Amino acid sequence: MYEQQPDGCRMSRNSDYGKRQFKRSPSHFTDRITRDGRDGWPVEPGRYRLVVSRACPWASRALVSRRLLGLEDALPVAVADPVQDDRSWRFTLDPGGKDPVLGIRYLFEAYDARETDYPGGVSVPAVVDVPTGKLVTNDYLRITLDLATEWRELHRPGAPDLYPEALRAEIDAVMDDIYRDLNNGVYRAGFATGQQEYEEAYTDVFRRLDAVTERLRDQRYLVGDTVTEADIRLFTTLVRFDAVYHGHFKCNRYKIAENEVLWGYLRDLYQTPGFGDTVDFDHIKRHYYTVHTGINPTGIVPAGPDLSGLTTPHHRERLGGRPFGDGIPPGPPPAGERIAPDGTAPARP
Amino acid sequence: MYEQQPDGCRMSRNSDYGKRQFKRSPSHFTDRITRDGRDGWPVEPGRYRLVVSRACPWASRALVSRRLLGLEDALPVAVADPVQDDRSWRFTLDPGGKDPVLGIRYLFEAYDARETDYPGGVSVPAVVDVPTGKLVTNDYLRITLDLATEWRELHRPGAPDLYPEALRAEIDAVMDDIYRDLNNGVYRAGFATGQQEYEEAYTDVFRRLDAVTERLRDQRYLVGDTVTEADIRLFTTLVRFDAVYHGHFKCNRYKIAENEVLWGYLRDLYQTPGFGDTVDFDHIKRHYYTVHTGINPTGIVPAGPDLSGLTTPHHRERLGGRPFGDGIPPGPPPAGERIAPDGTAPARP
Repeated sequence: MYEQQPDGCRMSRNSDYGKRQFKRSPSHFTDRITRDGRDGWPVEPGRYRLVVSRACPWASRALVSRRLLGLEDALPVAVADPVQDDRSWRFTLDPGGKDPVLGIRYLFEAYDARETDYPGGVSVPAVVDVPTGKLVTNDYLRITLDLATEWRELHRPGAPDLYPEALRAEIDAVMDDIYRDLNNGVYRAGFATGQQEYEEAYTDVFRRLDAVTERLRDQRYLVGDTVTEADIRLFTTLVRFDAVYHGHFKCNRYKIAENEVLWGYLRDLYQTPGFGDTVDFDHIKRHYYTVHTGINPTGIVPAGPDLSGLTTPHHRERLGGRPFGDGIPPGPPPAGERIAPDGTAPARP
Repeated sequence: MYEQQPDGCRMSRNSDYGKRQFKRSPSHFTDRITRDGRDGWPVEPGRYRLVVSRACPWASRALVSRRLLGLEDALPVAVADPVQDDRSWRFTLDPGGKDPVLGIRYLFEAYDARETDYPGGVSVPAVVDVPTGKLVTNDYLRITLDLATEWRELHRPGAPDLYPEALRAEIDAVMDDIYRDLNNGVYRAGFATGQQEYEEAYTDVFRRLDAVTERLRDQRYLVGDTVTEADIRLFTTLVRFDAVYHGHFKCNRYKIAENEVLWGYLRDLYQTPGFGDTVDFDHIKRHYYTVHTGINPTGIVPAGPDLSGLTTPHHRERLGGRPFGDGIPPGPPPAGERIAPDGTAPARP
C-alpha cells in the first residue's frame, strides 16, 4: 500500500541536510505488537513505552491516536527533549536526564539493546519493551494502525474506530496522496538543495492543499463522517504549517489561517479532545528552528505567529459528521501529560 | 530631527551580517542638490542620474517620489542588478554590463570618482553627476525631501505636495517612529545575532504596526488627507513585508494581508499611480533571499506568497481623502521603466 516506508523524525545537529537531495530512509525495525503476539510482542497493558518528541509530526500521530483510543495507561509515554544533541533524542526533560522507567539517557540505548552497533539513525516514534529495554519498532506508519486495530481490547469505552474496515481502501488512498505531497512534501521543500527541487515540492504541497480544500469544503472529515487515521495524519502536518513550514520550509503561498476551509477544519480538530491537547508549540518551534542549522544558521526562533485564533469558533458542525461516531470524546489528558501554556500558543482546548 | 542618519541599501555577499549587532552606519556623502546650488550642485534637468535597486526599500522611496512628482525626464534612473557581487551594486542588467549614460560597470566607480579609495560601503539610492561621473549624495533621507521641495520647478503639472510646510512637524514625528520601529526594525529583527535582540526588534515592529493600524483605521493617509512623504516611507516597507520580512526576517506575528486596515491601506497605495508601478517583486525576492547567505544559506527563493490580492478592491475611498490633493495622478511610467509581470506578482496596477 505504501510505496515508501519512511522513517519518522530522525534529525540531529550533525545531519547532512542541505548537502544532498532530501530522501527518507526506510524504517529498520518493523516488528509488530499484535493481539496474537506473532512477532514475539503481544499486546499487554503497561509492558511497552512509547517514545516520542512532541515536535515531531510522525510521533505526534501516535500521541493523538493514543489519546483518542484511551491508551494512556496501557501504553505510557516518554517525551524526549525537542532539541537533539549529536547523539540524537535524549531525556533531558526528566529528572537526572534519564527516562524514569527505562533508566536511559538517550533513545539510542534502546536501539543498542536491540541490535549492537546499529548503524542507522535514531527516530521517533519508537516503542520500547520495558522488561528488556529493547526497541520493538520505529515503524511509525504501522504503529498507529496497530494501535487502532491490534490494541482494540484495551481501548477506552466509547473509543472511535480510527481505521474502519469498510473504509480502509479509501483511507489508504487519501493518506498516500497526503503523505507524498504534503506530510513529506513540506520536508522536501524545506530541505531542497536547489531551486528546482524546492519548487517541485512547493507545487506538490499546494496542489495537495488545494485538493484537500475541495474535499473538505462540504465534508467535515476526510473519509466517512467520523474522525479516522487520515484526519490524524493531516492534522499533525496542518497544525505545524503556519508555525514552521510556512516560513522555515518556505511553503509560503498562503498560511492555513488564510484558507477558510482548512483553517476551519484545523480548528475543528484542534478543539476536539485528543488533538489540540497533544500539541506543544514551544517544542515544535524550538525543534525545527534550533536543530536545522543548515537552513536557520542563527538558531533564532520566531516569536510568531499569533496562534490564538486556533480556539475560535469554526462552525464546522453545520456540515454534520460526528467526530467519535457512536462513541464519546476522551476525558482530559492525564495530569503528567498536560502541556503548559506558553506565550504564543493558544489557550488549551 | 533624525537621531540617526542611516545609509540606504548597502549589502554585499561578503558583508558580516550575523557576526555583530546590526546597526546602520551614517551616510558619508551628504551634499544637497538645491535650487540655489549652494553645495555646488544646482537642480538642472538631465544633469544627474539616480541610481537605485528596485529591491531596496530606501532606494524605492526615491522611485515613488520621482514618479509622483513627474521627474522621470528631469532625473533619469539607472537600475542596478538586484543581486550584488563582492564589489556591490552593478549594472549587469544593461547591455554590455555598463550603465549606458555613466559608462560604468559598478556603482563604486562613481564613489571613486568623488573620493579616491573611499573606505565605506556602496549604497543605493545614489545620485551621480553625469558630466563628471562623481557621486553627489547617498543621503537617502534627504534625497526624497529635496525632490519634493528643491526640485519643485521641474515637477509635472498637478504634482502633489509631498512635504507640505504646515504638516512637516507631524510628518517628521510620524516618520521618526516608523523609521525606528519598522523601516529599520525589520532589519534589526532579521539580522539579529541573538534571541533577545531579535525579540526586542520583533516587539518594536508589531507595536508600531499596531499603532499605525489604529492611526489608519479611520484616516486614509498617515498625515493630512493626501499622500505625503510619510506614506511613501511606510509603503516601501509594507509592500515588502509579506514577501520577505515575514519569513526571511522572522517578522511573523501576522502578514499584512491578515491585518484588514493595513492590507486596505497597502492595496490603496499599491493601486495609486506612482506606487505599485515602481514595485518589482522579482527583484525584491531575489535580492533578499540570494544575498543574505548568513540567514538563507541555500539561496533558495520562496515561490510564494500569492500576491494577487494586491489588486483587489480596498474600499478606502469611503474614508475620504484625495491622494493628490488639488492635483492629478501621474500618467503611466515611461516605456523603458515598465516592470514585466512575473509568475507571482499581481497584475500591474
